[in-house]
This record gives sequence, structure tokens and C-alpha cells, in this order.
Amino acid sequence: MSEIISRLAVFGVGLIGGSLALALKRAGAVGEVVGVDRSIENLQLARDLGIIDRAATDAADAVTGADMVVLAVPVGQMAAVMRAMAPYLSPHAVVTDVGSTKQDVVALMQQHLVAHLDHCVPAHPIAGAELSGATAARADLYLAKKLVLTPLAQTRPDATSKVATMWQICGAQVRTMSAPEHDAIFAAVSHLPHLLAYALVDMIAQRDNAAQLFEFAASGFRDFTRIAGSDPEMWRDIALANRSALLAELQAYQAQLARLAGALEQHDSAALIGLFSRARQARQDWAAPINE
Amino acid sequence: MSEIISRLAVFGVGLIGGSLALALKRAGAVGEVVGVDRSIENLQLARDLGIIDRAATDAADAVTGADMVVLAVPVGQMAAVMRAMAPYLSPHAVVTDVGSTKQDVVALMQQHLVAHLDHCVPAHPIAGAELSGATAARADLYLAKKLVLTPLAQTRPDATSKVATMWQICGAQVRTMSAPEHDAIFAAVSHLPHLLAYALVDMIAQRDNAAQLFEFAASGFRDFTRIAGSDPEMWRDIALANRSALLAELQAYQAQLARLAGALEQHDSAALIGLFSRARQARQDWAAPINE
Repeated sequence: MSEIISRLAVFGVGLIGGSLALALKRAGAVGEVVGVDRSIENLQLARDLGIIDRAATDAADAVTGADMVVLAVPVGQMAAVMRAMAPYLSPHAVVTDVGSTKQDVVALMQQHLVAHLDHCVPAHPIAGAELSGATAARADLYLAKKLVLTPLAQTRPDATSKVATMWQICGAQVRTMSAPEHDAIFAAVSHLPHLLAYALVDMIAQRDNAAQLFEFAASGFRDFTRIAGSDPEMWRDIALANRSALLAELQAYQAQLARLAGALEQHDSAALIGLFSRARQARQDWAAPINE
Repeated sequence: MSEIISRLAVFGVGLIGGSLALALKRAGAVGEVVGVDRSIENLQLARDLGIIDRAATDAADAVTGADMVVLAVPVGQMAAVMRAMAPYLSPHAVVTDVGSTKQDVVALMQQHLVAHLDHCVPAHPIAGAELSGATAARADLYLAKKLVLTPLAQTRPDATSKVATMWQICGAQVRTMSAPEHDAIFAAVSHLPHLLAYALVDMIAQRDNAAQLFEFAASGFRDFTRIAGSDPEMWRDIALANRSALLAELQAYQAQLARLAGALEQHDSAALIGLFSRARQARQDWAAPINE
């Protein structure tokens, strides 16, 4: 594998950014990896673990000479990072991110990287994020995972192509779509389920007999609520960033629950078994290929 | 271990009934196990696998001489089984079941086993049921799992105690409560989550772009919806049997979702992070001891 990136700057060397760097290094696809992180400890750890070659002192130091810049920081920090690095970006440097929502990142790029939009390629790797920090990084995190690119109208095709190749080298399956389409899809299959799991656990935790309820919760409950163990700040950011699509999904789901409650109220056995059977069939058809 | 059961009659030799028989045999706690099953194939398989010692020809044959009768058939078949066996029950035979709802089983016992209520001990082992049939049975299924007993007002303490001992021998942790209390608890921590998972998968499966949505569903969605792969008939029965408690939980959950939607509409960052944080903390406190 020849180097497709000479110098990679990674902002946020945690599970997501760190795993990307490790995968590219293992493939011999990157010359030097420069890391930046709010946590000095995590940054030193990333260097000790060989995830980065050099710890940058600031954003200017990190992006100077970099031909690929990856923003793997929470969305809340992205504006500040973009502002800090913008003056120091090489004209040919490609800028990408790993955020779970895309319309908000597009808006931030349009605001803070206005002179550089032809090299901006918003991206979203679909990979679990239960663990965090440099120690959680692993070179095979993206193997056979989906990666969505949502290039801007201004993005040059060669910039998009460079980011696509970078992720393919990590083993990801790259898909391209618009940012609104991305956000609508993930509102349904990711953001809504997270809200539903948080809502159920919180509802039960608030009961007077919460301890007794949790005592009898079993493996079905454990799996159903696993995503309620996700980082609250990150999910607050995602929920607010994708607010309108998520509200539409919540409304559709409430209508679905109202139908279900109606069937139950009316002892409508056929409606219940119809809904349960359709759901089981759809899930089996979907889950089969992943070889659970 | 001495035999605490001379002859065990098991109606329904699948995962639940079969695993009970295997665990008792392994412990040397049962003399003879007699099985009954709608499926002749499954019954022969159970005998070939050593789960039962003898296949009974009918209910009368099964319960004659049995001192413990376990009803491990779907709730829908329970009335017929009770009617068929009632005339042949030994006076000292203890009758128990493994149903996921208890008020309905109590009502069936009161209707069909009226002369035998002092030996009736409704029970619910909290153990996974994704697989089914005799081949899925394993002696360690109940190890460290909860088992709830909901004895009737008429039940003799020695009958309750015999069923408790039987399950303790299988490694289960036995708890006793009233049938309404049982049904309220499981409406919240089991039946509601199942309905929520079915509802989400069905909602997505009905969309025009369902294939695209499922393409981007990842591990969080997979875990959240695992219970939507459960048996539709069994869950239709459970939902209808526990209808009023389940409707109350659905209503409480819809109110919780309305609060969440309100917070989202008003950009109420503090409310969102409060709910998400409480949920994560509660889940971590709960999940920690099970050593996920």
C-alpha cells in the first residue's frame, strides 16, 4: 500500500480518531500522524501506544503541512477547532469529520471554513462508541462497517475521493448521500432508538419501586437498554443537532404506539399478531446477513 | 441429592420444560420424568436426548402417579390441558406452570382445577426463550436466574415449598409475591420493552425506504430490537393476558415521550442531559453486578 496521506492531523485521539489513525498506519497509508486532544494525558497515551507520531501543541501546529485533517471532536467543540485551524490550512488540505449528524457540520463548515469549502468532506463512520479514549482505539474498528460521505455542492470530486479511499483502506464500506438524507435515516434507525431507551430506563428509575423493577429486569431488558448507557452529552448534542428529523420520528412512533394501544384496548388479537409477525420477519430478514 | 420428586409430569418438553427436567435429573432430584407434547417428533427427540424417561400417551397417562406436574405449554393451551388432567391428578400432586403472566394462570386454575387449588403453585422462571424445542434444553438454563412464585390464598405452604425447592435445585433464585404484583412488574420491565421493540421495527419496515433504513441500522439498533425477534403468538398471548397493566405502562411511556419531545422542541438542553444522565446512571448501577 502506498501512502495516500503524507501528514494526517487528528483532532480528538479517542476511539474514533485513534482507530482511524491505527488502521491507516497498519496499512502503510500515512506518512506522519499528528494528534491534538483536550486531554494532555490522553494525547501522551496516544503517542505511547503508537497511535500518533507527534503531539501537536495547538491547532496551527497540527494542520501546518497536513494534507488530511480529521475532526474527531464532539460537535460542541467543532466551531472553535475550525476557527483556530482555518488560517493555517494548506490550500490542498482535505478537511473531514466523524460526526453522527451532518447538516450541523455542513453549517459549521460553511460558517468557519468558507474559503476552504471545496476541500470539505463531511463524513460519518457507523461504528460503536461505547468505549472512549485512546486506549479503546483498535485498527479493525471500521472493518465491514458503513461510512457515509455527505459532500457539499462545492466539494471537489478529488477531495471526496481521497476521503473515500482513506476509509476504504480501513475496511469501511463507503456510501454517499446528501446531509439531509443522512440525518433523516439516522433519526429513524439510531437517534430515535437511543431516545426510546433513555426514556424507558429513566421512567423506571423514577418509580418508587425502581429497585424491585430492576431486580426482575432480565436479558431482554439489558439488550433493549444497552444504548441508554451512551454518553449523555454526545446524545444531547445529536438530539439537538437533528432536532426536526428526530421530532418527526418521535411523532410517527407515538402514532404507532397509539395504534398498538388501540389494538390492545379492543382485544384485537389479529392486529397484535400482525404487527408482531411483520416486525419479527423484518428483523430476521435484516439481521440474518450479519450473522448474529 | 435425594429425590424430592418421585414422578415428574412435564407438559411441553421444549426449552423451558426440557431444561427443568434436565437440571432435576442431573441433580438426582427426580425419580421418573414423563413427558407430553403436541409434537410427537419433539417428544421422541426429548426421549432420545434423555430429557424425559417416558413419553405419555395422553394427559391422564402423564399425571397418573405423578407428584409434580409442570405446565410448560403456551397459555392458550393451558385450559385444555388442565381440563384433561384434572380427573386423574393424585390428591397430593403439586401443579405448577412456567407462564410469563400470572393473573391469567391463577384464573384458569380457579376455573379448571377447583378441587385441587391447595396444591396449585403458579410460577414464572425468568429465563431467555429465543430458542425453542427439546434440542434447545440445557441443564444450566436456570442457574442464577430469578424464579417468581405467586401462590394462591388456598395454596398449602408445603406445596409452595416443594416448588421452591425444585427450582432452587436448578440453581434459580426464588422470590414470592402476589400475581397482580408480578404482572405489574413484568409489564414494566419485560412486556412494555417487547411492545416498544416490535413497534419500532414494524414502523421502519412499513416505510417506502425500509431497505435503505435497515442498511444503515447498526449494532445499537440490533440490540435494541433483539426482542422483536420473539415469538409473535406467545407475545400476543402475554400482551392480552396482561392487558390492563400493559396499557397503563404504555400510557406512562407515552407521557414520558411527550415530555422528551417537549424538551426537544424547546431546545431544553438541561432537561435532555438530565434525563439521559439519570438513565445512564440507573442502567450502570443496575447492569454492573451482572458483569456484562
